[in-house]
Amino acid sequence: MRLVRFGEKNNEKPGVWIDGVRKDCSAHFDDWNKDFFSNNGLQELQKLLDDGNTVFPEVPSNIRWGACVSRPNMILCVGLNYTDHAIEAGMEIPTEPVLFMKATNTLCGPYDNVSIPKLSQKTDWEVELAIVLKKDLVYSNNEEEALQAIGGYCIMHDVSEREFQVERGGQWVKGKSCPGFSPVGPYLVTPDAIPDVLNLNMNLTVNGEEMQNGNTKTMIFKPSFLIHYISQFMQLEAGDIITTGTPPGVGFGKTPAVYLRPGDEVELTIEHLGRQKQLFV
Amino acid sequence: MRLVRFGEKNNEKPGVWIDGVRKDCSAHFDDWNKDFFSNNGLQELQKLLDDGNTVFPEVPSNIRWGACVSRPNMILCVGLNYTDHAIEAGMEIPTEPVLFMKATNTLCGPYDNVSIPKLSQKTDWEVELAIVLKKDLVYSNNEEEALQAIGGYCIMHDVSEREFQVERGGQWVKGKSCPGFSPVGPYLVTPDAIPDVLNLNMNLTVNGEEMQNGNTKTMIFKPSFLIHYISQFMQLEAGDIITTGTPPGVGFGKTPAVYLRPGDEVELTIEHLGRQKQLFV
Repeated sequence: MRLVRFGEKNNEKPGVWIDGVRKDCSAHFDDWNKDFFSNNGLQELQKLLDDGNTVFPEVPSNIRWGACVSRPNMILCVGLNYTDHAIEAGMEIPTEPVLFMKATNTLCGPYDNVSIPKLSQKTDWEVELAIVLKKDLVYSNNEEEALQAIGGYCIMHDVSEREFQVERGGQWVKGKSCPGFSPVGPYLVTPDAIPDVLNLNMNLTVNGEEMQNGNTKTMIFKPSFLIHYISQFMQLEAGDIITTGTPPGVGFGKTPAVYLRPGDEVELTIEHLGRQKQLFV
Repeated sequence: MRLVRFGEKNNEKPGVWIDGVRKDCSAHFDDWNKDFFSNNGLQELQKLLDDGNTVFPEVPSNIRWGACVSRPNMILCVGLNYTDHAIEAGMEIPTEPVLFMKATNTLCGPYDNVSIPKLSQKTDWEVELAIVLKKDLVYSNNEEEALQAIGGYCIMHDVSEREFQVERGGQWVKGKSCPGFSPVGPYLVTPDAIPDVLNLNMNLTVNGEEMQNGNTKTMIFKPSFLIHYISQFMQLEAGDIITTGTPPGVGFGKTPAVYLRPGDEVELTIEHLGRQKQLFV
């Protein structure tokens, strides 16, 4: 299944993407949120789609695409999870996952404009594979249990301000939480609809020029290990978004460094997960 | 005013603390949450209390004390905000506030037991002055505007696992987000009920032995500056909790380091903000 959300910001409705069109599920579900995921909502939705007796109205194509899931309790990010990216960032290759958080109000739609923060000189891009959980999980016993908590995958653009992140004192959160810095979507794709999540091509262009080109097979820590690992340190919740790091090719890794300016268009793709496109303003 | 919450965990009701007893406000307000704060709830509550026509039933003293505010969208922490603590931590005195986040599901009541995490050897204490916001705020123009966004103050115990925080790779969030690591309360105290927030004695004991003894006057960055500063990097929201750092005397700053073990009792006080007490299990 491919889950979408559509409508005005902070007032989105839930839908699905089938055969190239969006279908409105709001008569049957409130939202793709914690309640939905933790009450076996995905199974229920699948059943409704399978039985074929329910008519889901088509969503007009001019309606805005929202983030594919509702605002979670947590957006947790894994840093430096691709060997080559750690090297380009001038950091050591981590022996354990590096974790940080983004403010959850950074969440936005896959085609929304992104505002370059006031006083920002170093707004940068990062294409990432994100995981959405369908279960609460703490102290998971093994990777298999962790895998069962994964509700689906989507693209996340982990927009980052490098000066705020690394030159303004302390922890990375400062450069990761500016308004609009987390476009997610276009769809949340359930695991059954992805042939192999550990072999997905990832790509990011700025104004049509390819900047990032990677594959999830070069991730250092895989999704099932990450979820298992993180749950030893904190209580994960259904609906939480965990984003798994970016491959090489970010702006601050280039010589000389390249950053986003108003008018720049960024496009992101991950195989089987669709495409995002944002205008930076 | 002193706002409290009472009842079972995740099902607390709102109340106030008047003349040494808790009064039930749940007939008039849903909760001390984002909706309450952002819709001038504090003013409305003050009016009800002032007019004297409303009877608020007394809460039996055996009912559990919950966190004094409901689960926020964000718990943001300021690190190393007391010169002496930065020195004991072996860190440089920051020239700008150091920010990090805690998972919001760490929130708990001021007298709840706190579980030492599985595999933890280095669970440590930190008494902190926390701020709760009553307004959304982004790109605040000055400290005066930031000050107007402050709804009140309370004690927060920023429980920390030092091995997870600094020896397990990367960012601090890993040692700050274990379940139960954020007792807040007993009350949220509105600014008018505190003579001078920049001159509050703070104290923490373990099994009756004084470990931390400080005063908010030695904070490096003051609340109004912190809120103004943080709002340049992210959108703050009504109900958010921002905790402002700890004075010297934490366990890992001692020679030799001292950490919490099952059976230890920790008591925290901040002048005018009451007292917390937790049993570590």
